[in-house]
Amino acid sequence: MHTYRTQINLHDTDAAGLLFFSNQFKLIHDAYEALLEKIGFGFGELLKHQPFFLPIVHAESDYKAPLFVGDRITIHVRVASVGTTSFTFAYEIFKDDGTLVGTARTVHVTIDKDTQQKIPLPERMKARIAELYAADNAASAD
Amino acid sequence: MHTYRTQINLHDTDAAGLLFFSNQFKLIHDAYEALLEKIGFGFGELLKHQPFFLPIVHAESDYKAPLFVGDRITIHVRVASVGTTSFTFAYEIFKDDGTLVGTARTVHVTIDKDTQQKIPLPERMKARIAELYAADNAASAD
Amino acid sequence: MHTYRTQINLHDTDAAGLLFFSNQFKLIHDAYEALLEKIGFGFGELLKHQPFFLPIVHAESDYKAPLFVGDRITIHVRVASVGTTSFTFAYEIFKDDGTLVGTARTVHVTIDKDTQQKIPLPERMKARIAELYAADNAASAD
Amino acid sequence: MHTYRTQINLHDTDAAGLLFFSNQFKLIHDAYEALLEKIGFGFGELLKHQPFFLPIVHAESDYKAPLFVGDRITIHVRVASVGTTSFTFAYEIFKDDGTLVGTARTVHVTIDKDTQQKIPLPERMKARIAELYAADNAASAD
Repeated sequence: MHTYRTQINLHDTDAAGLLFFSNQFKLIHDAYEALLEKIGFGFGELLKHQPFFLPIVHAESDYKAPLFVGDRITIHVRVASVGTTSFTFAYEIFKDDGTLVGTARTVHVTIDKDTQQKIPLPERMKARIAELYAADNAASAD
Repeated sequence: MHTYRTQINLHDTDAAGLLFFSNQFKLIHDAYEALLEKIGFGFGELLKHQPFFLPIVHAESDYKAPLFVGDRITIHVRVASVGTTSFTFAYEIFKDDGTLVGTARTVHVTIDKDTQQKIPLPERMKARIAELYAADNAASAD
Repeated sequence: MHTYRTQINLHDTDAAGLLFFSNQFKLIHDAYEALLEKIGFGFGELLKHQPFFLPIVHAESDYKAPLFVGDRITIHVRVASVGTTSFTFAYEIFKDDGTLVGTARTVHVTIDKDTQQKIPLPERMKARIAELYAADNAASAD
Repeated sequence: MHTYRTQINLHDTDAAGLLFFSNQFKLIHDAYEALLEKIGFGFGELLKHQPFFLPIVHAESDYKAPLFVGDRITIHVRVASVGTTSFTFAYEIFKDDGTLVGTARTVHVTIDKDTQQKIPLPERMKARIAELYAADNAASAD
C-alpha cells in the first residue's frame, strides 16, 4: 500500500472554514504523482520523454468529515483495476487520529500524444501498474 | 435551465497542456454559486447570515474532450434531485461549437453551523430549489 | 484603458474569510490574458503558434481592503512600460462602490521557445503593446 | 534559518510547461505556515483562538529560473524586519542542485478580528518573531 503524507494549508480552505471540495482532488493527485514517480513514471519524465498521456476521464470524491487548516493527513493509494487502455486508482484519506475523512477514485486512459487517440497501455507501464495491483490485492487478502 | 459562461484561463491548465481535472470542479462550483445567488442565497449571504452550511458530500466529473487555454465554455446547471436534508446538482459543459466536453454532479447536505449536525433543508431554501427542480423537469418534459 | 470584470468565488477565499493573497495574482493574470487576446495574442495562439514565451520575472501586489466571496470587481489594466526585451503591466482593482482594493504589477520578458534565451520582443507584438502604452498615456495626460 | 521542503506538482504548472507564477506565492506561504506553526502560531490555532489576523498587505516575487513538474525545492524563510504593527518575511527558493530559482517577500500587519483595525503585534507573537529575527541576523553575521 502506497501512502502519502501531507497537510491542509490555508490555500486549500475556503471562507466556510474547511477544505474546499475540489482541493481534495488536488491532494489525491499529488499522492498519485508520488506513486507514479516511485514506479519510474514521474510526471517530469512522462511529459518530456513518453509518447503518451494519461488523462483522467472520470473522478469522484466522497467527503465524510471536515478538514481544517493545519490538519495532517495520510492518503492511501491503491490500484483498483487495470485494463487494456485504462486503469483506476482508489484513495482513502485519514487524519492522524485514524478517522477516514474522504475517499476518491480516478479513472485514467492512455492517449497517444501525436494522434490524440486512445491506445493500449504501454507494456512497461502496464507491468508496473499490474504489480501494484497484485501487491495491493495480496495485501488485502491477508 | 441556468447557464453560466466562462473560459479556460492559463491557471486552469497544467503542463500536459489541458485543463487540470480538479479545475473542472472549480468551474462548475462557480456556476453553482451564480445560480444560488440568483435564487437569493449567494455565498456572501449564506456565510454571514444563514445558520447553516451546504457542504458537498459527493462530487464526480466525467471528461469527454480536452479543454485548452482560451476555450470558451457554457455550463448548464440543473437540480437533479432534492430531498429532506440533501440535494443534487448536475452540470453539463459545452464548448461554443456545441461539443459536450464534460459533466459533473455535486451532492450537498444541510449542516447546522452551531451543532455541525445534519438538519432538514430550511423551508425558504427548499422551496427555491424545488422550484428550480420543477422548472428543469418541465423543461426537459417538453 | 482596458477593464476586466470578475467576482470573488468561494475557491478564491480561505478560512480567514477573505481572498487568499495569491489569488489576487490569478485574477490580474486573467485580466492580462483578456487584454492579450484583445490585441491578437491570446494564450491559445501564443502557446501553439508563436516561437516565444512571455514569462513573468517579477510580480507584486498591494492589498488595501479585504475582498469577500461574492464581491464584484473591475480590474483596470495598463502598460506601465515597454522596453526591448521586457514590458510591465500595472493593475488596479476596484469594488463596485469605487473603493480601490488592490494594485499589482507584472514584469514580463520575451524568451525564445527553442533556445530558452531572452530575445527582443517580436515586432508585431511590440507594436501592439506600444500602442496600448501610448493610448494609456494619452488618456492619463487628459 | 527555517527551511521547508516541497516539490512542484502538476497542478502548480500551466500549459506553458512551468510553474504558474502565482503558485510561487502559494508555496512560500506554505513555508510561512510551517514556520508559524513551529513557533506556536499554526493557522488552526490563529483562526480559532487568537483575537487577531495577520493579513498580507504587500507581496512580491522574483523568478530567476524555470521550475518544472517533479522539481524538488527548498524554501529558506527568514524574518526581514519586525515593527510595531507589521513584519516582513523573506524567502529564497533553491533547487536541489543549489540554483536559486526565486525569491519573495510578504509584509503582514496585525488586525483586530472584532474592530478590523490595525493593532500592535501581540507581545507573545512579537517576542517569537523578534527571536527569529535575532537568530537570522546572528546567523548572517557569522
